[in-house]
Amino acid sequence: MYTRRIFPVTTVLKWTRRHIFLFLILATIPVILFDVIGIKWFRVPWLPLGVLGTAVAFIVSFKNNASYDRLWEARKIWGGIVNTSRSFTIMVKDYITNDFAIDNSSESELKSIKRELVHRHIAWLTALRYQMRKEKPWEKHLKNTRSNREFRSRKYLVCEDEQPISEIIKPYISQKEYDEVFAKGNQASQLLGIQSKRLKELKQKGLLDDFRHMEMTNLIVELYTLQGKSERIKNFPYPRQFATLNYIFVWIFIILLPFGIMEGFEAIGDHISRDLASHTSTTSAVHKFQEFIARHFEWFSIPFSTLLAWVFHTMETIGE
Amino acid sequence: MYTRRIFPVTTVLKWTRRHIFLFLILATIPVILFDVIGIKWFRVPWLPLGVLGTAVAFIVSFKNNASYDRLWEARKIWGGIVNTSRSFTIMVKDYITNDFAIDNSSESELKSIKRELVHRHIAWLTALRYQMRKEKPWEKHLKNTRSNREFRSRKYLVCEDEQPISEIIKPYISQKEYDEVFAKGNQASQLLGIQSKRLKELKQKGLLDDFRHMEMTNLIVELYTLQGKSERIKNFPYPRQFATLNYIFVWIFIILLPFGIMEGFEAIGDHISRDLASHTSTTSAVHKFQEFIARHFEWFSIPFSTLLAWVFHTMETIGE
Amino acid sequence: MYTRRIFPVTTVLKWTRRHIFLFLILATIPVILFDVIGIKWFRVPWLPLGVLGTAVAFIVSFKNNASYDRLWEARKIWGGIVNTSRSFTIMVKDYITNDFAIDNSSESELKSIKRELVHRHIAWLTALRYQMRKEKPWEKHLKNTRSNREFRSRKYLVCEDEQPISEIIKPYISQKEYDEVFAKGNQASQLLGIQSKRLKELKQKGLLDDFRHMEMTNLIVELYTLQGKSERIKNFPYPRQFATLNYIFVWIFIILLPFGIMEGFEAIGDHISRDLASHTSTTSAVHKFQEFIARHFEWFSIPFSTLLAWVFHTMETIGE
Amino acid sequence: MYTRRIFPVTTVLKWTRRHIFLFLILATIPVILFDVIGIKWFRVPWLPLGVLGTAVAFIVSFKNNASYDRLWEARKIWGGIVNTSRSFTIMVKDYITNDFAIDNSSESELKSIKRELVHRHIAWLTALRYQMRKEKPWEKHLKNTRSNREFRSRKYLVCEDEQPISEIIKPYISQKEYDEVFAKGNQASQLLGIQSKRLKELKQKGLLDDFRHMEMTNLIVELYTLQGKSERIKNFPYPRQFATLNYIFVWIFIILLPFGIMEGFEAIGDHISRDLASHTSTTSAVHKFQEFIARHFEWFSIPFSTLLAWVFHTMETIGE
Amino acid sequence: MYTRRIFPVTTVLKWTRRHIFLFLILATIPVILFDVIGIKWFRVPWLPLGVLGTAVAFIVSFKNNASYDRLWEARKIWGGIVNTSRSFTIMVKDYITNDFAIDNSSESELKSIKRELVHRHIAWLTALRYQMRKEKPWEKHLKNTRSNREFRSRKYLVCEDEQPISEIIKPYISQKEYDEVFAKGNQASQLLGIQSKRLKELKQKGLLDDFRHMEMTNLIVELYTLQGKSERIKNFPYPRQFATLNYIFVWIFIILLPFGIMEGFEAIGDHISRDLASHTSTTSAVHKFQEFIARHFEWFSIPFSTLLAWVFHTMETIGE
Repeated sequence: MYTRRIFPVTTVLKWTRRHIFLFLILATIPVILFDVIGIKWFRVPWLPLGVLGTAVAFIVSFKNNASYDRLWEARKIWGGIVNTSRSFTIMVKDYITNDFAIDNSSESELKSIKRELVHRHIAWLTALRYQMRKEKPWEKHLKNTRSNREFRSRKYLVCEDEQPISEIIKPYISQKEYDEVFAKGNQASQLLGIQSKRLKELKQKGLLDDFRHMEMTNLIVELYTLQGKSERIKNFPYPRQFATLNYIFVWIFIILLPFGIMEGFEAIGDHISRDLASHTSTTSAVHKFQEFIARHFEWFSIPFSTLLAWVFHTMETIGE
Repeated sequence: MYTRRIFPVTTVLKWTRRHIFLFLILATIPVILFDVIGIKWFRVPWLPLGVLGTAVAFIVSFKNNASYDRLWEARKIWGGIVNTSRSFTIMVKDYITNDFAIDNSSESELKSIKRELVHRHIAWLTALRYQMRKEKPWEKHLKNTRSNREFRSRKYLVCEDEQPISEIIKPYISQKEYDEVFAKGNQASQLLGIQSKRLKELKQKGLLDDFRHMEMTNLIVELYTLQGKSERIKNFPYPRQFATLNYIFVWIFIILLPFGIMEGFEAIGDHISRDLASHTSTTSAVHKFQEFIARHFEWFSIPFSTLLAWVFHTMETIGE
Repeated sequence: MYTRRIFPVTTVLKWTRRHIFLFLILATIPVILFDVIGIKWFRVPWLPLGVLGTAVAFIVSFKNNASYDRLWEARKIWGGIVNTSRSFTIMVKDYITNDFAIDNSSESELKSIKRELVHRHIAWLTALRYQMRKEKPWEKHLKNTRSNREFRSRKYLVCEDEQPISEIIKPYISQKEYDEVFAKGNQASQLLGIQSKRLKELKQKGLLDDFRHMEMTNLIVELYTLQGKSERIKNFPYPRQFATLNYIFVWIFIILLPFGIMEGFEAIGDHISRDLASHTSTTSAVHKFQEFIARHFEWFSIPFSTLLAWVFHTMETIGE
Repeated sequence: MYTRRIFPVTTVLKWTRRHIFLFLILATIPVILFDVIGIKWFRVPWLPLGVLGTAVAFIVSFKNNASYDRLWEARKIWGGIVNTSRSFTIMVKDYITNDFAIDNSSESELKSIKRELVHRHIAWLTALRYQMRKEKPWEKHLKNTRSNREFRSRKYLVCEDEQPISEIIKPYISQKEYDEVFAKGNQASQLLGIQSKRLKELKQKGLLDDFRHMEMTNLIVELYTLQGKSERIKNFPYPRQFATLNYIFVWIFIILLPFGIMEGFEAIGDHISRDLASHTSTTSAVHKFQEFIARHFEWFSIPFSTLLAWVFHTMETIGE
Repeated sequence: MYTRRIFPVTTVLKWTRRHIFLFLILATIPVILFDVIGIKWFRVPWLPLGVLGTAVAFIVSFKNNASYDRLWEARKIWGGIVNTSRSFTIMVKDYITNDFAIDNSSESELKSIKRELVHRHIAWLTALRYQMRKEKPWEKHLKNTRSNREFRSRKYLVCEDEQPISEIIKPYISQKEYDEVFAKGNQASQLLGIQSKRLKELKQKGLLDDFRHMEMTNLIVELYTLQGKSERIKNFPYPRQFATLNYIFVWIFIILLPFGIMEGFEAIGDHISRDLASHTSTTSAVHKFQEFIARHFEWFSIPFSTLLAWVFHTMETIGE
């Protein structure tokens, strides 16, 4: 997670530079058509476009709201995993004793049992972490666009991309368990299954009394639930039909934008032209320069509509 | 669920092509009235229409928000069913033992009991699945419009539409249960009822100790609750009065749109005409062509208002 | 609940026809003042009115959102009542046995006890249903407006309006209970009280073991809670101060609307007049007709502002 | 709570008459400057003001939404108190028996114990009620503005303002408890403390069996929690920084409003003037009157901007 | 927490005076360019800017909403800590007795044990408080801007900034515990760990019976959870990418604002000029003064756009 106050503006610009370039081109097309080629009629009135812009701002805001809520829910789930892991560790430390044991185990035996349980929990955390990092079809574009790839290669080395999961989990579980876990599908689920089986054994040996066994089983169930919730958030993206339409609407707005925005700039240009025409001296270089600018005032719409397009596009992208 | 990043634009266009065609016609009517027939006064000022548009964008956004929340809640419920099913399977595997049995059962007997319970659970899942797929009066239009029917027939074969529920459930439960379940109303509820009765029998035989029986009963209750929640979401659509009004408001906006949008295009046309009139040479072919376009500039409002109508209509439809 | 896809438009029109008529009159007044009586200065600029309209659309949307949330919460509560009733019936069926009884009861005795409990539960459901249908001061207007009364008399026969509660409940409970329940205030609460007392007796007779008695008591508590929640939603309407202001704001907008909307129509009329003036032949009948229309173009504002007023008013009313 | 359908409009006007008067003055100032003193340049363009108005409408709507949510949450908490009080009374009635008692108590003794517990609960409810009515620094203005004081003195006699808490609570608890409770801070908390101590005594005497004692203690904990939640809502107002800014923003808008709104009215006036100038007879009294009105059309902005100011101000105030 | 009704306006102005000054400069630049240097063409049409402004108002409102929700959730958590602390104290007072003790402890011994537990709880509260006050990277700017530093130094002495945590906690725990707690990372977690260990010892000595021990352990788990939730809210700010973009969007709007707003003021100026030109006497001093103002009317845009910039910027900052 990025934790500074805000991203530096240069980073943002770099990140989006490809799109900025595209918007520049889109904004230039109608101006060239208008002022260079002379096709004066290729435009769109601003007012209806403004209503479209408001509507688009609306639905994009709602989308961002929804994606923020998802983020917040995900954060709560991971907070729950942290809390439950803490409780699990404490219980392992406090509950596994010789007090009710049938055959007393030595201190070192108890210790190795405790270590085994905690290590298996770490393995579960690792498996879950990898599962959450796996690439989903609807995330592909995020990783594979050129801007992102560059950015990542330079700044972040995500360990889940660099090292295979098997390598990281191996030290935490026995070879037998390792084979068992990687033989079938959901590794995390299976690790919890083994954990639960192990607790049952401990109970049968009397190293864990009946009631405390039940409490620990409840914890395992809680971990199952948290895992299920993580998977739900991971596997259920913002509904694709909404995402698609937001995407299309924003692009419709962006494409129409330059054709609609010229109107305002042309009006300003006309206004200046009229002002200049009433001046007494109309031959000085400055005057000529101003007249030149006034006549080609549409060109100033390019940076402005690029900016607006950038704002709307970034707004749409950020909530993805 | 569609899982690619976004639907391809062509799919979206194909899907909505009937409506696009309709909007085109709606947009053409006022232009023909105006420019061909010469009824100049059939129009509406844009500004109040813009306020209507903003209001409509508003209430449609709220609706989409609500329908997203429903979707998310439904997703949580199914996530809960997945989690509870996992727990159920584990409990079946671990809790049914000879430990407290009055008459020990053979391993194979135990195994067949476990299989029976799990199979009945699958039958319940199936029954619930079919129930959720059943067509509700307010969903009819979604399935039966021509665009959807075509689309479905080509791409998706929803098994719930192809195979009758009885055929799929049959292998999972005994003939007696099958007759019982299909004799009365809610199949899923009855399957859970049988499940609960069966657990009581197992307890009485001592294959399930008292406390563990209670835990499994709690699970059955949880499944009941989840089924009830699924049914609630299925049977309680977005309130029809809200849906109706959104629908009417959007259509009012769409129908008025072409009458209001012409204003802006006419103004641009006039502006160009004036510009052209001040040109020195007014006889060249290009000039004549431009003059022709300027005089009939209203025609350009057709694609634009079709587009706007499409955006608002799709926005309204998507959240249904 | 209305369950078709949308209400037919004609129904909506019929339902709101009184208001449509009122809006027509409101919209006609300023036009008559302007064009017939010649008071040209009775009007309002559109732009500030547009901002007012946006603000009103906003707060009305929020209100509709809130009322949808209330509806959804109410639906959840009734879903909960359905689920809990199911569980209650199952428990009655399974838990009341001779297993721990002090003096064994005959099968038919057990059956009659079970029937009694279930019947009392139905009585409770009925009492709650009637309580929810009772008319609250802030609901009066909904039932008593003429449009609603007509509508109801023709289409719906709400049984709670036709039959007294006492008549419907009577068959489900004994005469003694009946007298007790209708002697004091909240019938539903008292029925649950009797239910709970009855369960205690069953426990004392040993027809219900201690632990199962506790579980059933918990169910009664759950029913109490659900009843309390229903009452809360019923007795706590959308806060009256918010409702009042929304109502006033919408009406301010509706009343000002026709005075503001004329501006746009007058401008169009002027525009057409100017166009017509430049025509070569200005004496043809068609031309005269068009001129006539252009000069009285304000009259077209009537249907348009009626429509807008209708949209805003319906939007406000629907969420009540 | 006001329970009629809506407040009558006259009440609303009376309530806000001081502000209406203030807005009238604010609206008149720029008109006098403009039309009487002749300072033509003291104004503001409408369009940016419109954007400000939209933004203000936005944040005020969000605030109202938040305050509605708080209200709803508060309502849920009080609903919870009602439910828990019901359960408490039932438990007192049913659980305190001689069944497990060491020394049997007489019926009247049991009855007096039950009455004592219920009375103490009423004392707790009273203490909590008074605590909720206590004036907080940020509520002062609500009670002390003149309009409110008048209103209250005429219509409502809030018993919490008229009678001291000690007087009302006294009859419900013994003198000893009374001294104890009013010696230290939070009366409600202490009453629950005494309640809990008393239940422990009853358990020790065997008038309450162990398990049922635990259930009642859980109820006391629940009451603690509900009290804590009530206090939280009471003591944590809508964050003051948000409230302050909303307040400032609305006032900025209200103060600028009359300076921006004149523009529209002046334009209408000019328009009418031009129309009148083209009339054939320009000397009739009616014509002169109309001309007079057209020239001083700015005066009509006064009621309109007063209205708008009132709408925005009331919208802001209502959610406080 | 500030608890008066609203912050006084002067405080708000003082707090934001640096930004107000900046906005003044930003607003002056285009006016100087336009009116002093004579670069007439450096401007932007208002209408698209207005749409941008609406969009910005939107996303900022959503952000404020989100930050209000976080605040409210945080408040709930601290309310939970207060409630749980109350319960903890009561339990310490009531549950630790000689009733089940193996070797009876003297009254003073019991008292010292109770004091120790409560003191340790206070130490936990203190540790959590300090943890919550720790400066996070994304909060730095809030504390270190000059306006805030000044403000704080004059008005608030936050004890967490003045006194080190170790000094405050020391009196509440023994030296041994002190060393243990400050040796490793999370002090609050360790204090709860010690608390839990101590409760186990008390149970083993019989000063706490088994069931009551479990209840108190549940309370410790609850405290863990509440601590975890506090940490989650503290450590997970409003997502930085959203915050960054809001920040950039608002600044884009603020920077463009003065270039767009001049349009409206220039139009008013022109209008006045035209009015003045038609006056009969055009030589009086007042007339000249008015003419002067009309010609330089753009200057009035400075306070207005400063105000708008201030409103949008403050709106954005307040929700941080």
